Amino acid sequence: MGIRLSANNYGKSRVRMVQVVRGRERNHLKDISVGIQFSGDFDAAHIKGDNRKILPTDTMKNTVYALAAEGPADPIEDFASKLSHHFLCNNPQLASVRVEITENLWTSILIGKKLHPTSFMRAGQEKRTTAVIATRSQLRIESGIDDLLVMKTADSAFDGFLRDAFTTLPETRDRLLATVVKATWRYRGDRAPFDACWNQVRETILAAFARHKSESVQHTLYAMGEAVLKRQKAIDEIRFSLPNKHCLLVDLSRFGLTNNNEIFVPVDEPHGLIEATLRRT
Amino acid sequence: MGIRLSANNYGKSRVRMVQVVRGRERNHLKDISVGIQFSGDFDAAHIKGDNRKILPTDTMKNTVYALAAEGPADPIEDFASKLSHHFLCNNPQLASVRVEITENLWTSILIGKKLHPTSFMRAGQEKRTTAVIATRSQLRIESGIDDLLVMKTADSAFDGFLRDAFTTLPETRDRLLATVVKATWRYRGDRAPFDACWNQVRETILAAFARHKSESVQHTLYAMGEAVLKRQKAIDEIRFSLPNKHCLLVDLSRFGLTNNNEIFVPVDEPHGLIEATLRRT
Amino acid sequence: MGIRLSANNYGKSRVRMVQVVRGRERNHLKDISVGIQFSGDFDAAHIKGDNRKILPTDTMKNTVYALAAEGPADPIEDFASKLSHHFLCNNPQLASVRVEITENLWTSILIGKKLHPTSFMRAGQEKRTTAVIATRSQLRIESGIDDLLVMKTADSAFDGFLRDAFTTLPETRDRLLATVVKATWRYRGDRAPFDACWNQVRETILAAFARHKSESVQHTLYAMGEAVLKRQKAIDEIRFSLPNKHCLLVDLSRFGLTNNNEIFVPVDEPHGLIEATLRRT
Amino acid sequence: MGIRLSANNYGKSRVRMVQVVRGRERNHLKDISVGIQFSGDFDAAHIKGDNRKILPTDTMKNTVYALAAEGPADPIEDFASKLSHHFLCNNPQLASVRVEITENLWTSILIGKKLHPTSFMRAGQEKRTTAVIATRSQLRIESGIDDLLVMKTADSAFDGFLRDAFTTLPETRDRLLATVVKATWRYRGDRAPFDACWNQVRETILAAFARHKSESVQHTLYAMGEAVLKRQKAIDEIRFSLPNKHCLLVDLSRFGLTNNNEIFVPVDEPHGLIEATLRRT
Repeated sequence: MGIRLSANNYGKSRVRMVQVVRGRERNHLKDISVGIQFSGDFDAAHIKGDNRKILPTDTMKNTVYALAAEGPADPIEDFASKLSHHFLCNNPQLASVRVEITENLWTSILIGKKLHPTSFMRAGQEKRTTAVIATRSQLRIESGIDDLLVMKTADSAFDGFLRDAFTTLPETRDRLLATVVKATWRYRGDRAPFDACWNQVRETILAAFARHKSESVQHTLYAMGEAVLKRQKAIDEIRFSLPNKHCLLVDLSRFGLTNNNEIFVPVDEPHGLIEATLRRT
Repeated sequence: MGIRLSANNYGKSRVRMVQVVRGRERNHLKDISVGIQFSGDFDAAHIKGDNRKILPTDTMKNTVYALAAEGPADPIEDFASKLSHHFLCNNPQLASVRVEITENLWTSILIGKKLHPTSFMRAGQEKRTTAVIATRSQLRIESGIDDLLVMKTADSAFDGFLRDAFTTLPETRDRLLATVVKATWRYRGDRAPFDACWNQVRETILAAFARHKSESVQHTLYAMGEAVLKRQKAIDEIRFSLPNKHCLLVDLSRFGLTNNNEIFVPVDEPHGLIEATLRRT
Repeated sequence: MGIRLSANNYGKSRVRMVQVVRGRERNHLKDISVGIQFSGDFDAAHIKGDNRKILPTDTMKNTVYALAAEGPADPIEDFASKLSHHFLCNNPQLASVRVEITENLWTSILIGKKLHPTSFMRAGQEKRTTAVIATRSQLRIESGIDDLLVMKTADSAFDGFLRDAFTTLPETRDRLLATVVKATWRYRGDRAPFDACWNQVRETILAAFARHKSESVQHTLYAMGEAVLKRQKAIDEIRFSLPNKHCLLVDLSRFGLTNNNEIFVPVDEPHGLIEATLRRT
Repeated sequence: MGIRLSANNYGKSRVRMVQVVRGRERNHLKDISVGIQFSGDFDAAHIKGDNRKILPTDTMKNTVYALAAEGPADPIEDFASKLSHHFLCNNPQLASVRVEITENLWTSILIGKKLHPTSFMRAGQEKRTTAVIATRSQLRIESGIDDLLVMKTADSAFDGFLRDAFTTLPETRDRLLATVVKATWRYRGDRAPFDACWNQVRETILAAFARHKSESVQHTLYAMGEAVLKRQKAIDEIRFSLPNKHCLLVDLSRFGLTNNNEIFVPVDEPHGLIEATLRRT
């Protein structure tokens, strides 16, 4: 019998950095967490314990800070590309590098109607993300939104579905629909106006979600994806992962009361999970 | 030897409710989590297994939904008072009731410049809280803010501190100051314009944090508390619990680079924790 | 109007340490997280930004490692006492110190029937805890168990309880009873065979839980506390905080099936919470 | 421009069940969380809002409980297979089903030297997992271990590694090595003595970890995988995902003290992450 080392990778996760860009009028804040993964020729390390081709993950961490010192990590897509380029150039043992960045968003504190120049508050739990996958011949850039919690209190139905012996769910033409949007999209090339694109995609997703006459989570997912691909030509493909954050109607009839579709129990588990990719043909 | 049942309480935690108030022009969303604790004469249950004075915690949960059916759980201070009043009136075995509510905040989705009437997104990780402690003779109302993450990139120093044999921290006149504000304050009576007060306290805390020339977390905590008590006469006392979310300057000199107070590592642990109560005299 | 600084404290939380005691035959592993809080004369720091009486929380962290270098942090009660003594002796500005330690438990890896001398695995999610509160005249030592998840599948009832208009819970003589035991007890003095006591208390709690004919969580809580106080004379007082980790019977009759008290849905929220202190009289 | 629905799936996550098997002498406890995902012909739901081929995720949840009523969900591999078979047989619109089960492990409470027949405690944070992927022609069964936290305090080195301009990590022949083992392996067919296999793989991993003279995480990963594939013929492939839970040596020289490789700070972030698959050739 033989044993073979198949797919393998290693790297550093959760390298956190806050970078303050100190402008003349105001400071700018960048708050990111970086993950780096190397793929390549690491058989000797695994099989013989020979570390000569292993760049320590501690060095990957140091590199994040060192490259940030050359200029702001902004936008995250460019910083991830820069990191992947640095690693590929300096490490012939690599076949590919994957750099993922998650950005926490901050906003200036508003006092009266004026933004304070050096004080900030977190702008929600929503995150901006990117993943750059670089080989010697190709750079693939994906960006995304994560943890964007939204809810519709009208225009959401779920009926006409398949039934079997274990189906007890009542049909409804009026339910709450809540989800935590996780969306990732692929850029056509390795250049794009990333900030503008991200903001447009986010706006498009929110507007599509809000306006949609939803027959199901699937139906709304598709509507959001279609709207993004129609509006944003720099994007070829978009993927959604949408938990159905169920809000169950409370049965008040047990107390002789009526629930006019107003009182719900949100439950975290179990939850539906709907995932799909839309692609330009 | 004898054994005595001393302080004891029981109740239901994390009773979640989403309530949709369906107005003519737009819906309003209330998303809360309720905790209820009873104190009173429960010796027989503990010692003899006699449950005749035990109202099930399941009933407490049902009561949240039943009372919400009488009218919106808004503001949370009034709903918590209503719940506590209901339980005290119907349960002679009770000495006191504590009702805590945590409210998740939502905002309408903005499309163009128009707020969508029935679609919402979460307004950050920040929470509005209340705790009502009711006895037969008294109602005490505390309200609060939780999970409000803020950062100053200027006007924060920490020097002139006490040193001992194990002190290695360098003094600084320019550091980052980040914290997650948890503040709770006590209202003078059981009536107040709770929504307006909460918004004012929040604004006051944010402005004081932003403008302060900080010599320490303690110094900024006091400045925030003083500003609130000065502005908001309905409040007698305010308490802060402020973790120091350290952002450590990265030493780039190891790579022959300079860090002009721009590149930091945020760390979650260990962290400072500064707590204090300010009271009107 | 005047404003007064009332109760206040500051310190360092989550100071983590792994200490390896390298014995002749085998290594011993201590994995702890320390929290330290100072109370005392800190008005000048809050009000004037004068840090001369503020020992940095970074120094508290360093002190944990420096004192551990003098000898193993074992048992945690003694190490917490040592820390509190050090801080009180060296800091006249202090009125009291609170040192909390949480210990993660590890066990040697068993190969065949032999314990490996230098390899370990975590012994569950259960934690051992202590809190030492020291003033100039007194040392109070509390110890505890946390995150000890237990379940009874027999000998648990809940009936004969109080009913009101919103009570829908069915009575039962046979339900599942699950909880996550959090217990803390106070030692009579500042010396005790802490390791032996902790193990005895843990065993006593588990045995009492297992054997009890439970009429409610309150009933079982009291039985566990009584058993501990009866057996362990070094302890004066014990407090429990017991969430009721509900396991709800699944209604299979909707599918024409019978559920013979065998199939349950565990739910995390909402949950009951039962708390009580038992004291020796 | 055209848009195409590409890869898509939907289902229910975190369907929790506790099943008590009431034996003559003792009860047995099964505590699982099930996730189900359907892939198939769902274009109409996405594009037209036509739900006729959509079995509600609520029905998937009900099916878990209904099938458990036919017999114990034990071992989880068989129960996952049964679920996948049920869904494929009854739903012609499906191309494939993925059923994942995570099992929380419990152990009887030991009183004296006797196991209590109806009282249990959680057996650590470690989990047993399975994923069954079923198509009309194939059944693929993967099983695994998750959250198994282990540490070596000897026989772990990391030196001779690649260095670049940003490398500052010192070489070491004696460090702590801690990781949280996540391993998943693929069974050759759809039948195997799953319980025995799982226990053997777990033992083999632990023994290999304990005994290995480690030159890196990669080196130990490979040793563990090789040991499993050598011992367990029913398994064709095994994959590990191993975070390097760094324990950093504390620099005590700043206080004039020596650290004889005894005092460490464990840090959660950043962390190394090493992943690899070993396959039988």
